[in-house]
Amino acid sequence: MPIFKAPTRDSRFIINEVLKLESYGNLPGFENATADVVDTVVEELGKFVSEVVAPINLSGDQEGCKRHPDGTVTTPAGFKEAYAAFVDSGWGTLAQPEDLGGQGMPHVLGMLLEEYLVSANQSFAMYSGLTSGAVAAVKAKGTPEQQQTYLPKMISGQWSGTMNLTEPHCGTDLGMIRTKAVPQADGSYAITGTKIFISAGEHDLTENIIHLVLAKTPDAPDSVKGISLFIVPKFLLDADGNPGTRNPVTCGSIEHKMGIHGNATCVLNYDGAKGWMVGEENNGLAAMFIMMNAARIGVGIQGLGQAEAAYQNAVAYAGDRRQGRALTGPVDPEQKADLLFVHPDVRRMLMDAKAFTEGMRMLAMWGGLLVDLAHKSASEQERADADALISLLTPVIKGYGTDKGFDVAVNMQQVFGGHGYIEEHGMSQFVRDARIAMIYEGANGVQAMDLVGRKLAMNGGKAVQAFFAMVDAECAEAKGDERLADLAGRVEKANGELKAATMWLMQNAMTNPNNAGAGAHHYMHIMGIVTLGLMWLRMGKVASAALASGSGDTAFYETKLVTAKYYGERYTPDAGALRRKMEAGSETMMTLPLEAFATA
Amino acid sequence: MPIFKAPTRDSRFIINEVLKLESYGNLPGFENATADVVDTVVEELGKFVSEVVAPINLSGDQEGCKRHPDGTVTTPAGFKEAYAAFVDSGWGTLAQPEDLGGQGMPHVLGMLLEEYLVSANQSFAMYSGLTSGAVAAVKAKGTPEQQQTYLPKMISGQWSGTMNLTEPHCGTDLGMIRTKAVPQADGSYAITGTKIFISAGEHDLTENIIHLVLAKTPDAPDSVKGISLFIVPKFLLDADGNPGTRNPVTCGSIEHKMGIHGNATCVLNYDGAKGWMVGEENNGLAAMFIMMNAARIGVGIQGLGQAEAAYQNAVAYAGDRRQGRALTGPVDPEQKADLLFVHPDVRRMLMDAKAFTEGMRMLAMWGGLLVDLAHKSASEQERADADALISLLTPVIKGYGTDKGFDVAVNMQQVFGGHGYIEEHGMSQFVRDARIAMIYEGANGVQAMDLVGRKLAMNGGKAVQAFFAMVDAECAEAKGDERLADLAGRVEKANGELKAATMWLMQNAMTNPNNAGAGAHHYMHIMGIVTLGLMWLRMGKVASAALASGSGDTAFYETKLVTAKYYGERYTPDAGALRRKMEAGSETMMTLPLEAFATA
Repeated sequence: MPIFKAPTRDSRFIINEVLKLESYGNLPGFENATADVVDTVVEELGKFVSEVVAPINLSGDQEGCKRHPDGTVTTPAGFKEAYAAFVDSGWGTLAQPEDLGGQGMPHVLGMLLEEYLVSANQSFAMYSGLTSGAVAAVKAKGTPEQQQTYLPKMISGQWSGTMNLTEPHCGTDLGMIRTKAVPQADGSYAITGTKIFISAGEHDLTENIIHLVLAKTPDAPDSVKGISLFIVPKFLLDADGNPGTRNPVTCGSIEHKMGIHGNATCVLNYDGAKGWMVGEENNGLAAMFIMMNAARIGVGIQGLGQAEAAYQNAVAYAGDRRQGRALTGPVDPEQKADLLFVHPDVRRMLMDAKAFTEGMRMLAMWGGLLVDLAHKSASEQERADADALISLLTPVIKGYGTDKGFDVAVNMQQVFGGHGYIEEHGMSQFVRDARIAMIYEGANGVQAMDLVGRKLAMNGGKAVQAFFAMVDAECAEAKGDERLADLAGRVEKANGELKAATMWLMQNAMTNPNNAGAGAHHYMHIMGIVTLGLMWLRMGKVASAALASGSGDTAFYETKLVTAKYYGERYTPDAGALRRKMEAGSETMMTLPLEAFATA
Repeated sequence: MPIFKAPTRDSRFIINEVLKLESYGNLPGFENATADVVDTVVEELGKFVSEVVAPINLSGDQEGCKRHPDGTVTTPAGFKEAYAAFVDSGWGTLAQPEDLGGQGMPHVLGMLLEEYLVSANQSFAMYSGLTSGAVAAVKAKGTPEQQQTYLPKMISGQWSGTMNLTEPHCGTDLGMIRTKAVPQADGSYAITGTKIFISAGEHDLTENIIHLVLAKTPDAPDSVKGISLFIVPKFLLDADGNPGTRNPVTCGSIEHKMGIHGNATCVLNYDGAKGWMVGEENNGLAAMFIMMNAARIGVGIQGLGQAEAAYQNAVAYAGDRRQGRALTGPVDPEQKADLLFVHPDVRRMLMDAKAFTEGMRMLAMWGGLLVDLAHKSASEQERADADALISLLTPVIKGYGTDKGFDVAVNMQQVFGGHGYIEEHGMSQFVRDARIAMIYEGANGVQAMDLVGRKLAMNGGKAVQAFFAMVDAECAEAKGDERLADLAGRVEKANGELKAATMWLMQNAMTNPNNAGAGAHHYMHIMGIVTLGLMWLRMGKVASAALASGSGDTAFYETKLVTAKYYGERYTPDAGALRRKMEAGSETMMTLPLEAFATA
C-alpha cells in the first residue's frame, strides 16, 4: 500500500521561517498564529491525515462510489467514519471566521489543510474542499440571514456544499446555460435543469448538501450577463433550521471516471427544486468567480498534493529496490545490485520532483498569505497590492501547478518501472487523480488565457510590472550570497525571458489577438518557472542565513540550498525555449482549415 | 464510442512518395511491393483494423481479461472472433519469410501493420506483436528443426508467442534472474521459476502459446553471462507436431493494471516445465536482444499509434463541440458559440499532435526500411551503415516516441475538457494505454542510457557522426527551397545543439560517468527533435516538389508544408534548453544522500 507522511518540517520551515507568520501579528487572526501554535497545528494535522485519511485512499479508488436505484450514493468503505472524525476534530474550521463557528486562523493554514488532505486522499479532500468554495460565495454575497442559516453547519462540516456550473452542452462557456429559475410567490425560485460533473453532488457523509447553482431567471439576457446564483439545499430546512422535506434535486447517475473514484461526480437533475437567490439577479458570475478563485488556488494545490504523495512513494521505492550497478562502480558490492537511487536518471526524476514540490508548497503558502493580506492589511494600498498579486498568480498556481504536478506524478510512476503500472502500488492512482486538476475549475488553457488576456492588463499592467521588479530586486540581492548566486543569475535570466515575452505580447496581441492565444500556454509556464524560482530564492536566503548563524539542523538547510541550485540548473532553461515558441506567433498555427485535420 | 480511421493517405505518401519503396525493387521481397500493391495493402489493412479491431477497443478496456480458478484466461468479448479473422486474413504473415509461410514483403509493411493494429487496439495488437518478437528470436538463433517446428504456426497466428524476462525481484537487471533450467536425459531442460509481467502470457485466442524464457543452467555464471534462452510451449507437441500434453507452466494471476486491460499480463509459474535451449548456453542475452530490438521499435510505434487514435478523436470533438467565441470575433454568429477548433490553445494542441504523429510515422516507416536494408542490401557497406543507423535510432524511436506519444495523448484528452476524464469517451484509455509504452521493453531511462552509453560509442562514434552529416546536408539542401528554409534553419540549429551536446558528453562522461547518466534523458530528446526534424524536411521536400510539378492533391501537400513549418517553430526550440540542462552536469543532481529525500 502506498505511504504518506505529511511533510511537516518543510511546512514549518515555510510558514515560520520564510513567511514568518508571527511577524504579521497585527493582522486579525494572526495574533494567535504564533510559531508554537503553527508547529502544533502542522504536526497534529499531519498526524490526522496520515493516520485517518491516507489509509483509505487506495481502497477508495478501487471501490469507488455507488449509486443506488433510489438515487442515493454510498461513498467507499471508511469514508463515512473518516469524515465524521474530520468534523469532530474541527480541522475544517481552522481558517474560517470565528463569528460563524470557525477558529479564525490565517488562510495560510487553510492552504496547509488543503495540501495535506489532498496528498492523503484527493477524493476525500474534495468533499470538504467543495464546501469551502460554496462557503466563500455565501460569505461574500449571501444575506446575513443566508449566512447564519447555512454557514455555521457548512463550516463545521455537518453539511457539505457543491458548485453547480456545468451542463451537458456547456462548461467553459457559461453564457449558454439553460437551467431555469422561476420566481415563486414566497420569494424563492423553482430551479429546473440538468447539471453535470458535480463533484460531491450526492453522498452519505453529511445530513444535508447545500448546492450552489447557476441558473437563469425567465427574462434574463441570453449571455453570461443573465446568470444568477442560487442556494438549493438537498433537504429544505424546517422551522428549527434542521433538514426536513427532500427538495427535488436528484442524482441521475455518477460518472465512470479516470480517477478520483472516491468522490461522487454526479449528474444532478433539478425538477422544480426550491432555491434562493444569492446576491443580485444576473450577477451570478461575480459570485461564481469568488467560488472559482478560491477553488482555483485549491486545485493548484492538488497538483502539489499528488506530486508530493507520488514523490514520497518513489523515494521509498528507489531506496529499497535494487537493480543494476552505479555507473561509477558498485556502491554496495556485498549486494547483488545497487539501489535504484544510485542511478542518475532516477535521481533526476526525484530531484525534479523535490524541486517542484518544495517550490510549489512555498508558492501555495505565500498565496495563502497574500489572500489574507488582501483582506486584512491595515493599509488600503497593501490590500490592493496583495490582491493584484494573488489575482495575477492564481492562474499560474492553478495552471502551472497542475501541469507540473501531473508531470511529476508520471515521473514518480516511472521510477517504479513495471510495478508502477500495477494498481496495487498506488502510483497509477496518483497519476489518474492528478490528471483531473488540469481540467476542472477552468481547464489550463482557460487559465492561460485568464493570465494573458485579463491579468496582465489589470490596472495597465501594474501587477505584472511589480512582479518583474520584485523578482529582479530579489535576484540582485541573492547574487551577493555565493551559495545563491548561480540560482539568482538563472532566475534573473528567466525573468528577462518573461519580460521579453510580455513585451512581445504587448506588441503583437493588439494587431492579432490570436497571437496571445497561441502563446498563452507557454507564457503561463514561463511565469511558473520564474515564480518558483523566486520561491527558491526566498527559501535559499533563509537557509543560507540559518547556516551562517549556526542555528543547527544543518542537513536540512544544506539540502535546501542544493535543491535550490538544482532548480536553477534544470528548470530555468525552459524559459527561453518557451519564449521562442511564443514568438513564432499564431500564423502557422492557425493556417489550416478543419478539413486539413481530417484523416484521409 | 471513440472513432478510428487508418491514416492511409499519409501512409501511402510516406511509403510510395517519400521512401519510394518501389525504387528498392532490386532487394529481395521488394520486387512485389510496387506502389499499386502498397496502395492495396494500406487500404485493405486500414479497412480491416477499422472495421474489425477498433470496435472492440473500448469494450475490451472496460471488460478486461478474466482468470478462472483453473488458471485459464478469457479475453474480452469479441477478441477471439477478431483474432480468428486476423489469422484468416493472413495479415500477420505480411512481412514474414516465404519459406516459413510468410508473404515476404518488406519490413516497412510490417511496421505499417503494427502501427494500424496499435492505433485500433493496443491490447489486441500485443497478442500478435509479442509473437513477432518471439519469432524473431527463433529465426535468428533457433535450429532449423526448431524453426520448422514452431515458426510456421506462429507466423500464421495459429500459435502465439511470449517473452519471459522479468521476475519479481528483477526487471532491467537480468543478471539477477533465478529461474532454473536443469538438463534432462532427452536433451530438454526442466524449467522452474516465476516470471511476472508476461504480456499475452495466457489467453484463449490460440491453440498453443510458445513461451521464450530466460533461465539459468545449474552451473551458469551468476551474471548476465549466465543466462540462456529456452522455448517452453504451453502444450508439448505430439508426434504430428500438434499440441498434446499440457506443460506445467501456469498463470498464477493476472495483473490489475492502469491500462491495456484487454491484454492478459500474467504471473507465470514454471514448475519443471519442459523446454529446449535456443542458441548457445549462457548466450541467451544476445538472443533476447534480438527480440528486444524488434520489440523496441514496435513499442515506439505504440507511442505513435496511441497519439494518432487520440488525435483523431480530439479533431472530431474540436470540430463538433461549440464553446466560447474566437478571439478575433464570432466565426459562426448564427450559432450560440464557435467550435472549439477556433481557439488557438486548442489548435496548438492539435497541431502539436499532427506534427508529432506524421513525423513519427515517417520515422517508423524509415526505421522499417533501415531494418530491411540492414538485412538485404547487396552491398556489405550499405548493410553495415543501415544497421548502424537503425541501432542508433532504436532507443530514440522507443524512448522519444513513447514519451511524446504519451504527451500527445494527454493533450488530446485535454481538448475534451471534463468529458475527456469520463471513460466512455475513450480518451482516458488512450492515455492509460500509452503510459505502458514508456515503461516496458526497457524503461525510457534505460533507452536513454543505451543511446548515450552504448550507441554513441559504436565504431568510434561513426554512426552518430554520419547522422550529423546527413542532417546538415539535408538542411543545406532544403535551405534552397523558400518553403522549407525556415524549417531547415531551425533543424540545422537543433542539430548544432545535438552536436554540442555530444561534444559535451565526450568531454565530461570520461571523467565522471554520472555526467552521461544525468544528461541521457535530455540527450535522447534532443536527438528525437532533430530526427523528426529530418523526417519533416524529407516530407516537405517531396510536398514542395509535388506542388511545383502541379501533380494535384494540392491541399494535402500544402498541409504538409504548413505542418513542417509548425514543427520547426514549436518543437525545435526545446533542443537548446535541453542541452543547457545537460550541461549542468551531475554534480548538483547527485549531491544529496538518500536521507535528504526522506519526509521529515
